[in-house]
Amino acid sequence: MKSLNRAEAAGFLLVNDNFCILTHRRPDGDTVGSAAALCLGLRKLGKQAWVLKNEEISDRFGWLVEGLTKETVEEHDIVVSVDVASPGMLPKCFASLAETCRLRIDHHGSATSFTPEELVDADSASCAELVCDVLAILGVEMDKNIAEAVYVGMSTDTGCFRFANTTAHSFTVAAVCAKAGADIYGLNQQLFETNSLPKLRMHAWMIENMKLLDDGKLAIVAIPRAVEELLRVTDDDMDNISSYPRTVAGVRMAATLRQTKDGETKISVRAIPGYDAAAVCAHFGGGGHKGAAGASTHMGLEEAAEKLKEIMLGM
Amino acid sequence: MKSLNRAEAAGFLLVNDNFCILTHRRPDGDTVGSAAALCLGLRKLGKQAWVLKNEEISDRFGWLVEGLTKETVEEHDIVVSVDVASPGMLPKCFASLAETCRLRIDHHGSATSFTPEELVDADSASCAELVCDVLAILGVEMDKNIAEAVYVGMSTDTGCFRFANTTAHSFTVAAVCAKAGADIYGLNQQLFETNSLPKLRMHAWMIENMKLLDDGKLAIVAIPRAVEELLRVTDDDMDNISSYPRTVAGVRMAATLRQTKDGETKISVRAIPGYDAAAVCAHFGGGGHKGAAGASTHMGLEEAAEKLKEIMLGM
Repeated sequence: MKSLNRAEAAGFLLVNDNFCILTHRRPDGDTVGSAAALCLGLRKLGKQAWVLKNEEISDRFGWLVEGLTKETVEEHDIVVSVDVASPGMLPKCFASLAETCRLRIDHHGSATSFTPEELVDADSASCAELVCDVLAILGVEMDKNIAEAVYVGMSTDTGCFRFANTTAHSFTVAAVCAKAGADIYGLNQQLFETNSLPKLRMHAWMIENMKLLDDGKLAIVAIPRAVEELLRVTDDDMDNISSYPRTVAGVRMAATLRQTKDGETKISVRAIPGYDAAAVCAHFGGGGHKGAAGASTHMGLEEAAEKLKEIMLGM
Repeated sequence: MKSLNRAEAAGFLLVNDNFCILTHRRPDGDTVGSAAALCLGLRKLGKQAWVLKNEEISDRFGWLVEGLTKETVEEHDIVVSVDVASPGMLPKCFASLAETCRLRIDHHGSATSFTPEELVDADSASCAELVCDVLAILGVEMDKNIAEAVYVGMSTDTGCFRFANTTAHSFTVAAVCAKAGADIYGLNQQLFETNSLPKLRMHAWMIENMKLLDDGKLAIVAIPRAVEELLRVTDDDMDNISSYPRTVAGVRMAATLRQTKDGETKISVRAIPGYDAAAVCAHFGGGGHKGAAGASTHMGLEEAAEKLKEIMLGM
């Protein structure tokens, strides 16, 4: 595998044609935004470029690749993946394409290389920023569509600039997108200022059922499966739900417990610097970082919550 | 009154010394951040500079001006105001200073000029961005403290880049701040990812008591004063609370009603493009913009809510 810098990746795209772009399974804003931006940019250079149809892309991001997708890879196609850290991240029906993929553009630090050439920058907050840099080197003039695709990728992967991965470069790219006519306000409203009613009802339930310990420095919320069913939350609604209790002023470390369909209890802990979420989860055989960690246990919900309380208070 | 551009304002600061900087009443992040950044920047140029002590500055922003404040204006001081749109926006104890103020740096569109010279750019999302530009012209090298002051001003006035006033320039300035060492993640956590428990309890109450109309396109929440008292919310907690119901997916226009101490009902309406909040509030003698409007009425809470329902459904 040959590691390329941005200019070399631009060179690869310049000398080839007939591109087919792969997105990852459970597609997020970054993989879809990166694919759309790359596809549109290559077309602006007069190249043939398509995004391979990924059935898992939801309405939330599907509009980005409208008119850009095709159903199958052709023999002469140059296959390029965006935001795909390993063959296992490809959708099942793309699995056979890992071998034919020629270039991987990605920003995941821990990855399994699977292409002959790759542009990987683990310091980049998003893959979309890499695509934006490469398109700039290629002399592609940003337009509203490319800018919105890049912005969706970059803003979703940085949580609208609130995640720890946000860099000066993220802001520089956002400035480029805004100048090129991206509807920053509209996109932010749609992506970050809109929540489903079930999700907000879950927030409400969590606030009312949260146990605060140690003068409000610690929080524990145990969510029975019946409550999730009653409130009709989806997986999307529950995505990153464990970061919510930590947003209560004064809370330094918060644990969220959920019951899986098989009766296991999933624990997710979030902490600010000075507290160690991974150390808490280690008691249950789990792991992660100081700021965010997780574990699974056969204990029931109440029993696990009680043990968590002891552990967190004892630290 | 002479209108200055950025370079001319830089010139004014360059030829003068002994600066005393004024912030506005009910001080927000932008006035405090702008004052701190300007003061620190001028000191880096070897000038004497202070921020006049404003008792109203809360803990949330007070750390920005620690070590930078003084109690009184001296005779030889060059008084400069930041983010102050009119003399009426000065704290009461600063009122007499409106006449001696020499330069106003501001970004408010509708303003009452009160200084012999002013740098005003209504297209700037924040005053802090203007200060940042002027310091750059003056050749002040950004450091962590200046960068954090500018970032607090800019990010709070743009709602962390989510308000409609956000521009490409806002992102460019954010990139400058990040490069200069501002703790973007820490500041965002502190400013935007932390809410008081009473505020989150109020959110929970609103979600449970919201009335959805017209297939969920319209929402009305009427908050009795007794609920505000029971949940012990502060003015800070209730600031901009009316934007919350509009964040429910599908809701296009949302009205929030509150009871004042004098028994009046305050109405606040938020709407997405295609709906007209100002037209709704006009029925109560209020006004505003299509996106955000308000009104007051002598009607009781329930009566006003009922009338709002008829008006909103009839539009």
